[in-house]
Amino acid sequence: MNSVFGRPAFMAVDWGTTRFRAHLVAEDGRLIDSVASNDGMSSVKKGGFETVLSRMCAVWLERFPGIPILTAGMVGSRNGWREVPYVACPAGLPEIAGGMVSLKLAGGSPIHIVPGLATDDAAADVMRGEETQILGLDASDAVVILPGTHSKWAVVRAGRVETFRTFMTGEFYSLLTHHSVLRLLAEPPTDDSAARAASRLGAAAAVTDGGLLNLAFHARTGVLAGRLKPQDVEPYLSGLLIGEEITKARRLVPPDLPLLLVADGVIADHYRQAIEVTGGTVSLANPERTFVDGLLRIARHTKETGRVRSH
Amino acid sequence: MNSVFGRPAFMAVDWGTTRFRAHLVAEDGRLIDSVASNDGMSSVKKGGFETVLSRMCAVWLERFPGIPILTAGMVGSRNGWREVPYVACPAGLPEIAGGMVSLKLAGGSPIHIVPGLATDDAAADVMRGEETQILGLDASDAVVILPGTHSKWAVVRAGRVETFRTFMTGEFYSLLTHHSVLRLLAEPPTDDSAARAASRLGAAAAVTDGGLLNLAFHARTGVLAGRLKPQDVEPYLSGLLIGEEITKARRLVPPDLPLLLVADGVIADHYRQAIEVTGGTVSLANPERTFVDGLLRIARHTKETGRVRSH
Repeated sequence: MNSVFGRPAFMAVDWGTTRFRAHLVAEDGRLIDSVASNDGMSSVKKGGFETVLSRMCAVWLERFPGIPILTAGMVGSRNGWREVPYVACPAGLPEIAGGMVSLKLAGGSPIHIVPGLATDDAAADVMRGEETQILGLDASDAVVILPGTHSKWAVVRAGRVETFRTFMTGEFYSLLTHHSVLRLLAEPPTDDSAARAASRLGAAAAVTDGGLLNLAFHARTGVLAGRLKPQDVEPYLSGLLIGEEITKARRLVPPDLPLLLVADGVIADHYRQAIEVTGGTVSLANPERTFVDGLLRIARHTKETGRVRSH
Repeated sequence: MNSVFGRPAFMAVDWGTTRFRAHLVAEDGRLIDSVASNDGMSSVKKGGFETVLSRMCAVWLERFPGIPILTAGMVGSRNGWREVPYVACPAGLPEIAGGMVSLKLAGGSPIHIVPGLATDDAAADVMRGEETQILGLDASDAVVILPGTHSKWAVVRAGRVETFRTFMTGEFYSLLTHHSVLRLLAEPPTDDSAARAASRLGAAAAVTDGGLLNLAFHARTGVLAGRLKPQDVEPYLSGLLIGEEITKARRLVPPDLPLLLVADGVIADHYRQAIEVTGGTVSLANPERTFVDGLLRIARHTKETGRVRSH
């Protein structure tokens, strides 16, 4: 495991609500090894976090005793391993690294939990995990789009997160396709190009005046009237919700900043297409890579400054 | 039962997806007796509609053999008692009455099922049940608002439904308060005036630029930041969704027509308040009364013209 890379620098753990992902990271940032499971925060009992981590990463911890661990995401929330207070925006690398809370595993490894961010305005918006991906981009001035259950749009200026907004896009998609009347007419998409066309149709609808409450219903009337196939329902709703997110978010962010999209696969496809439909271009970054790069920057900064809070 | 009113004119049955309501109606429209249950279309097996009706209305059917029955709602849909084809807009009393489908119960009573309406445009929107309430208003020129799981906004000109649009307001409310992350922070409202204030806050948010996907999340961040109480979450979301419906719907309907709201109780309260917030006034009509009045107009029209389709 260390024949090519030498001794790894640290373990990077992305610990969200539903997923656990860990990487063994080399000094130069390359991934030596990775593991993943569904041991997200919501399925770990209070007090059970160390057990899950020790089980998932047993081989690494045994081979590299005392290796530092950096983790970010819902693991630092009230119902996570240890609540780490939000850092207030605007915030960059020093503020985020300085807000970490550190514990020690039974085996001797220090584990550093990255804080989330909170906006300092009336919206009091919050994020946990995405701040690490934004750091990983190392962008000076940009609008960073992080799609997800709760998508984030972050305004970055001079390398600091100035403010951000949450959109419940992924959750609305899940609600509509799993629990609403629209699911009754839906069938799983079978053809990629048909799905892309239906998603584009949804995004184009989103820029009209109808509003989500009416335009979502078009998925039903469209199938009843034969304008949409049952296989179009899910991609239409995906395009509609993403289009709505983009249309509304772009009214809230400065128009002069470049758009950076942290996404891959079908999600990246649907966002790129919806951004085209609403007018604009976007650069793409890989979610896993930006997460590890964020922790790498934090690790280097911490090494340089030597400042970590212990509890 | 008939000592005051004489022989009843007909039975009015409002048979929707989740509820069954029946009234014994006098010649002059007064309600002699009423029954209700949760035997909505979705809980009745194919072929079981006559059994439910006979059981629920056994006393009336025995006392007034051969009494005509008029019914409207999802009972006329594909999964209802008998599919009654939609009548195309624009449509008024003659078109709707002319589109009824009639059957005969084993006991001899004729039952007439009122057709739903479909718009004749690309949206191909549909309604079942609300057309009867609109007829019951007997309005010449108005925008009729019918809140519900799937709210309808109908444009009435010269007494005919010209077109209409559906908004999934009630269903979104149910999804967010029963299945979303927002339910985790919510507690049932305990104070009417606090609930009204939270609903007003939601309606005021709806007219801003944030959009539903972001503004719904404010229910969560609001509680986390202490700006909202857990008891405010549900009325805030109600006001937000109703405000969104009203804002978007008013862009689609003619601005010069008076608004008629078919609602009562808390729903009527929240709609009136949200219409005030977004600017405007509205007149109120009782949902049950307008339904019976609609069937009464159809019954009288049918008696005069004698035209009913039998199948």
